Amino acid sequence: MANSKYEYVKLFEQPDVLLPNTWIVVRIDGRGFHKLSDRYGFVKPNDRRALDLMNAAAVEVMKELPDLCLAYGVSDEYSFAFHPSCLLFERRSAKLVTTIVSTFTAYYIYLWGTYFPDTPLQPAALPSFDGRAVMYPSSRILRDYMSWRQVDCHINNLYNTTFWTMVLQGGMSNTDAEQELKGTVSSDKNEILFKRFGINYNNEEEIFKKGSVIYRQYQLEDAQSKSGTSNAEEEEDMPSAPASRSQQDKIRKLRRKAQVVVDHVDIIKDEFWQRRPWILSGRPGKLPTEAQ
Amino acid sequence: MANSKYEYVKLFEQPDVLLPNTWIVVRIDGRGFHKLSDRYGFVKPNDRRALDLMNAAAVEVMKELPDLCLAYGVSDEYSFAFHPSCLLFERRSAKLVTTIVSTFTAYYIYLWGTYFPDTPLQPAALPSFDGRAVMYPSSRILRDYMSWRQVDCHINNLYNTTFWTMVLQGGMSNTDAEQELKGTVSSDKNEILFKRFGINYNNEEEIFKKGSVIYRQYQLEDAQSKSGTSNAEEEEDMPSAPASRSQQDKIRKLRRKAQVVVDHVDIIKDEFWQRRPWILSGRPGKLPTEAQ
Amino acid sequence: MANSKYEYVKLFEQPDVLLPNTWIVVRIDGRGFHKLSDRYGFVKPNDRRALDLMNAAAVEVMKELPDLCLAYGVSDEYSFAFHPSCLLFERRSAKLVTTIVSTFTAYYIYLWGTYFPDTPLQPAALPSFDGRAVMYPSSRILRDYMSWRQVDCHINNLYNTTFWTMVLQGGMSNTDAEQELKGTVSSDKNEILFKRFGINYNNEEEIFKKGSVIYRQYQLEDAQSKSGTSNAEEEEDMPSAPASRSQQDKIRKLRRKAQVVVDHVDIIKDEFWQRRPWILSGRPGKLPTEAQ
Amino acid sequence: MANSKYEYVKLFEQPDVLLPNTWIVVRIDGRGFHKLSDRYGFVKPNDRRALDLMNAAAVEVMKELPDLCLAYGVSDEYSFAFHPSCLLFERRSAKLVTTIVSTFTAYYIYLWGTYFPDTPLQPAALPSFDGRAVMYPSSRILRDYMSWRQVDCHINNLYNTTFWTMVLQGGMSNTDAEQELKGTVSSDKNEILFKRFGINYNNEEEIFKKGSVIYRQYQLEDAQSKSGTSNAEEEEDMPSAPASRSQQDKIRKLRRKAQVVVDHVDIIKDEFWQRRPWILSGRPGKLPTEAQ
Repeated sequence: MANSKYEYVKLFEQPDVLLPNTWIVVRIDGRGFHKLSDRYGFVKPNDRRALDLMNAAAVEVMKELPDLCLAYGVSDEYSFAFHPSCLLFERRSAKLVTTIVSTFTAYYIYLWGTYFPDTPLQPAALPSFDGRAVMYPSSRILRDYMSWRQVDCHINNLYNTTFWTMVLQGGMSNTDAEQELKGTVSSDKNEILFKRFGINYNNEEEIFKKGSVIYRQYQLEDAQSKSGTSNAEEEEDMPSAPASRSQQDKIRKLRRKAQVVVDHVDIIKDEFWQRRPWILSGRPGKLPTEAQ
Repeated sequence: MANSKYEYVKLFEQPDVLLPNTWIVVRIDGRGFHKLSDRYGFVKPNDRRALDLMNAAAVEVMKELPDLCLAYGVSDEYSFAFHPSCLLFERRSAKLVTTIVSTFTAYYIYLWGTYFPDTPLQPAALPSFDGRAVMYPSSRILRDYMSWRQVDCHINNLYNTTFWTMVLQGGMSNTDAEQELKGTVSSDKNEILFKRFGINYNNEEEIFKKGSVIYRQYQLEDAQSKSGTSNAEEEEDMPSAPASRSQQDKIRKLRRKAQVVVDHVDIIKDEFWQRRPWILSGRPGKLPTEAQ
Repeated sequence: MANSKYEYVKLFEQPDVLLPNTWIVVRIDGRGFHKLSDRYGFVKPNDRRALDLMNAAAVEVMKELPDLCLAYGVSDEYSFAFHPSCLLFERRSAKLVTTIVSTFTAYYIYLWGTYFPDTPLQPAALPSFDGRAVMYPSSRILRDYMSWRQVDCHINNLYNTTFWTMVLQGGMSNTDAEQELKGTVSSDKNEILFKRFGINYNNEEEIFKKGSVIYRQYQLEDAQSKSGTSNAEEEEDMPSAPASRSQQDKIRKLRRKAQVVVDHVDIIKDEFWQRRPWILSGRPGKLPTEAQ
Repeated sequence: MANSKYEYVKLFEQPDVLLPNTWIVVRIDGRGFHKLSDRYGFVKPNDRRALDLMNAAAVEVMKELPDLCLAYGVSDEYSFAFHPSCLLFERRSAKLVTTIVSTFTAYYIYLWGTYFPDTPLQPAALPSFDGRAVMYPSSRILRDYMSWRQVDCHINNLYNTTFWTMVLQGGMSNTDAEQELKGTVSSDKNEILFKRFGINYNNEEEIFKKGSVIYRQYQLEDAQSKSGTSNAEEEEDMPSAPASRSQQDKIRKLRRKAQVVVDHVDIIKDEFWQRRPWILSGRPGKLPTEAQ
């Protein structure tokens, strides 16, 4: 019994290959996490268990996909970056996005009990994530994307910290707190925290203020004195013709050897990128020696 | 602190809205399930627990997304069909695909223990799925797509049943069985099963031979005598202008009330579709009365 | 000297194949024709020479591309429809659109002198056209698209006829005429034309009121009594699997034999389509006998 | 009479905006120019009139679209490059491509008589062009694209020059010449030309050997000593955030003032680009002073 009569339906599959030599960022977001965080009693404004679970799932995604250079997470979202030279799944968009979304979801569900030992998942309200891929044609724009997410983290966290302190410690109603914060700038919020509650925002946990950045660890390099030139050099070095399959396999193996680390640091300024040139270059660095 | 400096990166997000008035099929596939089925000791040629788990996850997806009309599953793949009138997530491809993939994965992981009580998941080998969306511009082609999958199910299952019977009951090596089956047609395989092993393929379980079809249950209608006309009528009826938001919400509510059922029947012939006209029309039928 | 070093740039070409089994409409529009019609002294509200030139160019496009089923033109725009079964240029969007735009432009420029013998083209202001392709997944929607254009033709022509009569015959300023027409409905405009200027809009030229429809001429069939069923039957008949190359070549030859005609008739009601079933079916009819 | 009933068909128009901050190359090709060059008696291997007509049409396209940075033509093809910062027509692909194709075609037809005064166009065989847009994410790759076309020009021209000399001067049949050239490399062809016919390929006209490059003329700069670094600097300088509308208008005005020139020079090596930095930077240079 041949299947040829119906096989024409395969013709309806349309290609979705992403443009070569561009950064691919896959951002995933929790679906309905506002409601979900209430249902599972997430601590306000930041639930450390929930963030650690997000990071743990993201680390597993980074380990499963050595083509990934970087991931940045905040709240219920995570951005994963593939290098412009990446040829994984022939750069098919749906394949890249769904692989990341599914792997992340699998670990999030599987590891839930580790981070929420006293709060079992409810079958009618399982967490899930959606996602999408976006292309960025240069390292400068990839960095601007990451800066955008980290600035957003800061803005939201300062707001949320102030709001929930006013409500939980100050005894204000949600509406009153919201009303008072309307139109305030950063310095206003810092002052409210400090004057009324004795809280110095700078002393808040780094993971709340900076979000989480995940990358492979090699020997750090010295930060370069000439600010800004590093990128230009990356661009210049960046190969435009695609790597051979064997070159790719070799690089993938080297990447698997590196440790995947979670950091809570500034990724807006040059220093982060200058000391870790392997992230933008896509070329593995030297593994840290034991002596270090 | 405004975020405007970096916000331009949002301009790089490209729209991925699917063409209106076309069927959308999201097909998901297990990633590396050949290896995974070995690791978790799936029974050959069909593991009933694994199929039941697939079906259980798919049922939850159907329940969470009332816009879905139909799902068809076989082995480690599942196809979910949205009606041409569907406007969920403004028909954005990545959003539709990732929502299904993530929801399916979440339930697959969560329900694993129910179906494999003695085989715990291993953290280094969690199951995951990829997926993609394809558009089909008419009900005829949607049906041909479903026929394609069910014929595939039949071809693969007959082959696998014969192969594994030769190996497990006949004591042949994998290579020898493969060699003997090369070039055989259906009747040859039926004969091998019957003459050598006394197995009548027709008596195999329906779920193995037909796969699993999931839909919402309303009162069945009589099959129409005029074959083939049903589709033409569906097409004729099919609204071309989009439904209003309130109409959509109303239909969604009606769909939520219907029971989601799993069936193992022929979906190639007309009868299945004629008795369940609500699947192709997208208009909910009458709920079965209690007396029935 | 091999070219292999640079050939990788071909990888950046992305596919743009349109979905199979959908109608493809390529609509072209004159670029800056408002200004251009002033420069070349087009008669207001309708310049018969300009419309005849548009039609002449469109007829040549229909002749060069036998895959085209239908064209509809009004003012400085023209819509060309490819049948769902069309496989020309593998349905690549840019190729289809640019071929039509370029062929149309070539004939428009070449034939200009025939229709504007006293108004030579000026090198700094050559007419040109842009265009785009849109897919429509059923004959019903294709007909609604064509109805949309013809209703637009009617609305604009009634407005323009009234406006320019008020200005040219009534001696009103543009501003005054515009002001008076603001908020009026069709019957108001008909009344202005009739009461003030003795003009019965119904007696205006059909080409102005209905636009121009171009198709291949076969023996007309009787209009069917059952309204609306025709479409359903078309859909039902429509082949879903692609035609072979030889079938396509045969159909193309038959189409080349038919005469291409320009008509100014209603294409909103069923009659036009029922009497010319070959347009929606994509199957050539019988050539008119000489006796007819 | 409202048009709302049919207006839903507009929903089927899908966006085709090209990725920001990438080079856009629109390449157009003559349709069926092999046959057409026979019909109009183009001189072999190169018809200077035909090339001059191509260049004249391309110059007009460059003048009409100040957003274009560069054009390169060879034989019956022309590539037009928009800068990454270009926002013309919101970067809609079909609009950009069809505008170029139509404008080019219009001038090609209009100017035909100037370049072929004794060979009038035949109504059944008007020249036309198809086209497509491709994105290139860096200046390095844009340059590689241009190198690819110029190397292709060289390879084809050396072959054609040798082939037609063997046929026209050597009296060989087409088949014999083709047979002899099979498998030859550049030096073989140079030797055939020189030894048999006394032709030094280096003395052939530059327009045949190098093709034609079109750009806006500003004051040339000194070629930089450090080879290769120029690109890195361009990248570094390249703005990533979009320009405001007024900035764009200002730049467009400056570009309109520059003279559009046609050159036949090497565009593979760095020198061309280093002396004309405005091409890759997208920032107009200084207009040449009268004294120069």
